[in-house]
Amino acid sequence: MTSIQKAACIGGGVIGGAWAARFLLGGIDVSMYDPHPEAKRIVGEVLANAERAYAMLTMAPLPPKGRLTFCGSVEEAVAGADWIQESVPERIDLKRNVITEIDRYADPEALIGSSTSGIMPTELQRDMQHPDRMFVAHPYNPVYLLPLAELVGGERTSAETLKRARDRLAPIGMKGVILKKEIEAFVGDRLLEAIWREGLWLIHDDICDTETLDDVIRYSFGMRWAQMGLFETYRIAGGEAGMRHFLAQFGPCLSWPWTKLTDVVDLDDALVDKIAAQSDAQSGARGIRELERIRDENLVGIMQALKAGDGGKGWGSGKVLADFEKRLWAKGGGRKEAPDISQPLRLVDTRVSAAWVDYNGHMTEHRYLQVFGDTSDALLRLIGVDFAYVEGGHSYYTVETHIRHLGEAKLGQGLYARLQVLGFDEKRIRYFTTIHDAQSDEVLATAEQLMLHVSAKAGKSSAAPAEILARLAPIADAHAKLPVPQGVGRSVGQKVV
Amino acid sequence: MTSIQKAACIGGGVIGGAWAARFLLGGIDVSMYDPHPEAKRIVGEVLANAERAYAMLTMAPLPPKGRLTFCGSVEEAVAGADWIQESVPERIDLKRNVITEIDRYADPEALIGSSTSGIMPTELQRDMQHPDRMFVAHPYNPVYLLPLAELVGGERTSAETLKRARDRLAPIGMKGVILKKEIEAFVGDRLLEAIWREGLWLIHDDICDTETLDDVIRYSFGMRWAQMGLFETYRIAGGEAGMRHFLAQFGPCLSWPWTKLTDVVDLDDALVDKIAAQSDAQSGARGIRELERIRDENLVGIMQALKAGDGGKGWGSGKVLADFEKRLWAKGGGRKEAPDISQPLRLVDTRVSAAWVDYNGHMTEHRYLQVFGDTSDALLRLIGVDFAYVEGGHSYYTVETHIRHLGEAKLGQGLYARLQVLGFDEKRIRYFTTIHDAQSDEVLATAEQLMLHVSAKAGKSSAAPAEILARLAPIADAHAKLPVPQGVGRSVGQKVV
Repeated sequence: MTSIQKAACIGGGVIGGAWAARFLLGGIDVSMYDPHPEAKRIVGEVLANAERAYAMLTMAPLPPKGRLTFCGSVEEAVAGADWIQESVPERIDLKRNVITEIDRYADPEALIGSSTSGIMPTELQRDMQHPDRMFVAHPYNPVYLLPLAELVGGERTSAETLKRARDRLAPIGMKGVILKKEIEAFVGDRLLEAIWREGLWLIHDDICDTETLDDVIRYSFGMRWAQMGLFETYRIAGGEAGMRHFLAQFGPCLSWPWTKLTDVVDLDDALVDKIAAQSDAQSGARGIRELERIRDENLVGIMQALKAGDGGKGWGSGKVLADFEKRLWAKGGGRKEAPDISQPLRLVDTRVSAAWVDYNGHMTEHRYLQVFGDTSDALLRLIGVDFAYVEGGHSYYTVETHIRHLGEAKLGQGLYARLQVLGFDEKRIRYFTTIHDAQSDEVLATAEQLMLHVSAKAGKSSAAPAEILARLAPIADAHAKLPVPQGVGRSVGQKVV
Repeated sequence: MTSIQKAACIGGGVIGGAWAARFLLGGIDVSMYDPHPEAKRIVGEVLANAERAYAMLTMAPLPPKGRLTFCGSVEEAVAGADWIQESVPERIDLKRNVITEIDRYADPEALIGSSTSGIMPTELQRDMQHPDRMFVAHPYNPVYLLPLAELVGGERTSAETLKRARDRLAPIGMKGVILKKEIEAFVGDRLLEAIWREGLWLIHDDICDTETLDDVIRYSFGMRWAQMGLFETYRIAGGEAGMRHFLAQFGPCLSWPWTKLTDVVDLDDALVDKIAAQSDAQSGARGIRELERIRDENLVGIMQALKAGDGGKGWGSGKVLADFEKRLWAKGGGRKEAPDISQPLRLVDTRVSAAWVDYNGHMTEHRYLQVFGDTSDALLRLIGVDFAYVEGGHSYYTVETHIRHLGEAKLGQGLYARLQVLGFDEKRIRYFTTIHDAQSDEVLATAEQLMLHVSAKAGKSSAAPAEILARLAPIADAHAKLPVPQGVGRSVGQKVV
C-alpha cells in the first residue's frame, strides 16, 4: 500500500494550507495544527482556490474530499497520521523544535516531511528519536497545482524513506524528485537565487524595469523551461552534434562571465522603493486574488496542454496529470454506492475553465461536445469499459451525434451532465445527455448520440461481451420507463412539433 | 504602414533560418545570403518545422507564404529590403564587418537588426554610415514560435528606430521588448547565464544529475515563468502585503548567498564528460529531430492554452498569438481572389496537433467539432461577419449540429474542410461540412448545422442585414445546383436508405 492514509499538517499558512488542499482533494483526511488566529481563514481561502482549480483541471473522478480537522496541539494533530508535513516559519530553532515534538508523538513508521526552502535536513533532525524517517519535501506554490516536491535526506535519513515518500506523492498527483546530496537551498532555490540576484542588478542598474524583465522571461525561455528545463533545451540547441558541442560552444563564456553575480546588490530602501513602484505599475491594476486566479487558470491550461504532449502520452507536468487521472479512473473515484438508475445518471460535474471560453467569455461550441464526450466515457466506465478493457483492444466509438444549443455557459460557471439511455443492442448504445447550469438546473445543451462497439484490431464493429451488456441492461430497462426527452429523433432544422 | 515589406536575412543557420521562417510565414518575401554550403538544407529543415508548427498553432488565415530567394552577395540580398537581420556567427569582427557591408548597400531607411546574443550594439555599429537605424534584435529559439525579440540600441541608435522595430514585429506575431540601456548579454542571457553557472555547479558537485535538475525546473517554477515571469510571481508570493513584504522577507538571504556564483566552475573534460553522459541518459533515447518536434508541439499547446487566459482575452505569449490572429482575420488571409462557389467551399486547412489527440493518437471527438466550428467561422467571414461585425453586437450562433464519424484522424495528419450551403432565410443558415484527409480526400466526418442570426444586446434572433444576405445568396444559389449530400436530414440512428 503506497497511499497516504491520513495526513497531519503542522503550520497552516499559504504553504501548509496548500499541502492540506492537495491531501484533501486527494481524498486524504487532514489534521491541522496552527496556533495562528487566522489559520482557519487562510486554509479556507487556499482550499477554495484549489477546489476551483481542480474542477477545471480534470474530469477524472476525484475521490470524496478528505475531512479537515483543526487540532489544539501537535500531539493531537499527528495522532494516527502516516504523513506529517511541517510548514512553520523559516527559522531553524522553531522548525527543529516543532519537528522534535512531532517525532515524540508520531507513529514511529510515519513519514515526516519539512517544507523548508533552505535548511538542511541534518540540522532539522538533530534532536529526533527516529530521524531516519524525516526528510525535506520542498514544494512550490501553488502546491495544489505544481507537482514538484524536492525530496532531500539528511545524514540520518534512510534511503528507504525517500523512496517511500516519492511513492506516496504520486497518488496525489505530485512528482517527488530525490536529490543525491543535501545542500542549503537544495536545487530549485539555488537556481532561483541565482536568477533573482542577477535580476535585482538589472533593475538596480536601470537596464529594464520589472515588467520588461518578466516579459523577457515569459515570452522566451520560460516557455521552454515549462516543458523541458535547462539541459534538454540546450541539448536541442546543440543540434545533431549534441550536448558536447553545445558545451564546447558555450564553455568559453564561463571564464569571462557577464553577470554581476560576484557582487551582492545592496537591497537598500531606494532599491526596494524602485522595485515596489515598478511592480505596482506592472501588476497593481489587479488584486492578488485576481492574479492568483489568472495564475491558476494559466497553470491548469499549461498542464492540460502538456497532457496531450508526446503523441497524447503526456509530457512533463502533463504526464504527471495523466498518471494522476489514470489512477483516479482505475479507482473509480468517489462512487462508492451504486447510482440511482431510476433517473438520468448525473455523471459529470465540472466548471467552465479559461481554456474553454471564447473572447466573449462564452463556452466555445466544441467544449460542449467535450462535456458530452466525458459523460459518455463515464457511462462506459460504469458498465465496465475502463482503461484495461480499452487496452485489451475493444471499445465503444461514437458514430453519430445530434446537438442542440439552448443556452450559454460562461467562464467559471458550474455545470453538470445527466445521461439517459434510450436503447441498446449487442453492438449499439443510443443515449441522450443534457448539460445543466449547476445553480439553476437550466438545460444549456442536449445531445443524442449513438455509440458502436468495435474491435480495434479487426477495425470493425463487434458484439459487446455479455458482462458489459449485463451491466448496461438494468440501466436501459430503468430508463425505458422514463418519458422520451424532448428533442430525441430530431434532424437539423426540423420544425418543433 | 508598420509592416515589413521585404526582409533580408544575412546568415542562414538555425537562428537565421528561423527568422526567415517567421518572415515567410508572415507573408514577407525573404532574400537570404549565406555562403555556407549547407545553408539551403538547414533553412529548408527549419522552414519545414515552422510550417508544421504553424499548421497546429492557428486556424487564422495565414497570408500567402513569402518567396525565399538565395542570393550570391550581401549587396544582392539587401536590395529593396526594409528589414535586414544579421545572424552570422558570434564573433565581433565578423559581425561588425557584415553589418558595415549591409549598411553600405542597404536603403538608408531600412532597419538593420543583429541577432547577437551578447555583443553590444555600440560595438557593432562603429563603422556604419547610418548607425541610427541599427540595433540588436535578439530572438530565442525556436524563433518561429517564441515571440520575444530583445530590442537594444547602441550609442548611435535613434529611439525612433527601436519603436519602429517593435511596431514591425507585431504583425508577424513577435513581441519586441525595448531595453533601457545596452549591456553585454542584455537581459535574457544575463539571467540564463546566472542559472547556467549555478546549474553547472550542482552537476559538478553531484547534488543531482541533469535530468533531476530539469525536472526541478519543469515541474515547478518553469510553469510559473511561462506565464508570469519572476517579479509578478513573487508579487503573488508576497500576498496581500505585496512586493514590499516579499522583499523584506527575502532580502536577508542576499547577504549570505547560498549559491556558488562567486566561483567559476572549471568546465574541464571530466565535467563535460559527466554532463554529456547524464544528458545521454536523460534524452538520448530520442533524436534531436524528435525532441524538436515534441518541443514545438508543447510550445504550441502552451501558447494555445494561454491564448484562452484572462477570461479569453489571452495572457502572455497567448495574448501575442491572439493579437497576431486578430490581424490575420482582419486582413482576411491569403484569399485574394473570389473563391469558386460552384463547388463546396474549401475553407479550412489544418493538421492534427498533439493537443487534439487522445492517448491512442486519434483525434478526440470534440476536436472534429472544433474544425467544423472553424469552418463555420470562415464562411461567416466570407459573407462579412467579421470581428468588427461581432463587436457591433450581432453574430450568428450555432443552434443545432448533426455529426457523423466515418473515419479517423491521427496525430500530424493533414485535414481540410469543405462547406456546402443547404439553404438560408433572413435569420437562418443551414449548411453541410465535410472533413477530409488531405492526402486521400477520404471523408472522415460530416456535420449538418443550423446557425441563427442574433442580436447580442437583445439576446434574441434577428434578421441579418441585407448586405450580409446579399453575399450569402450567390453562394447558396450556386450550391443549390449541387446534389444534396448523403447524410443530410438524418436523425441519430436512422437507418441508411
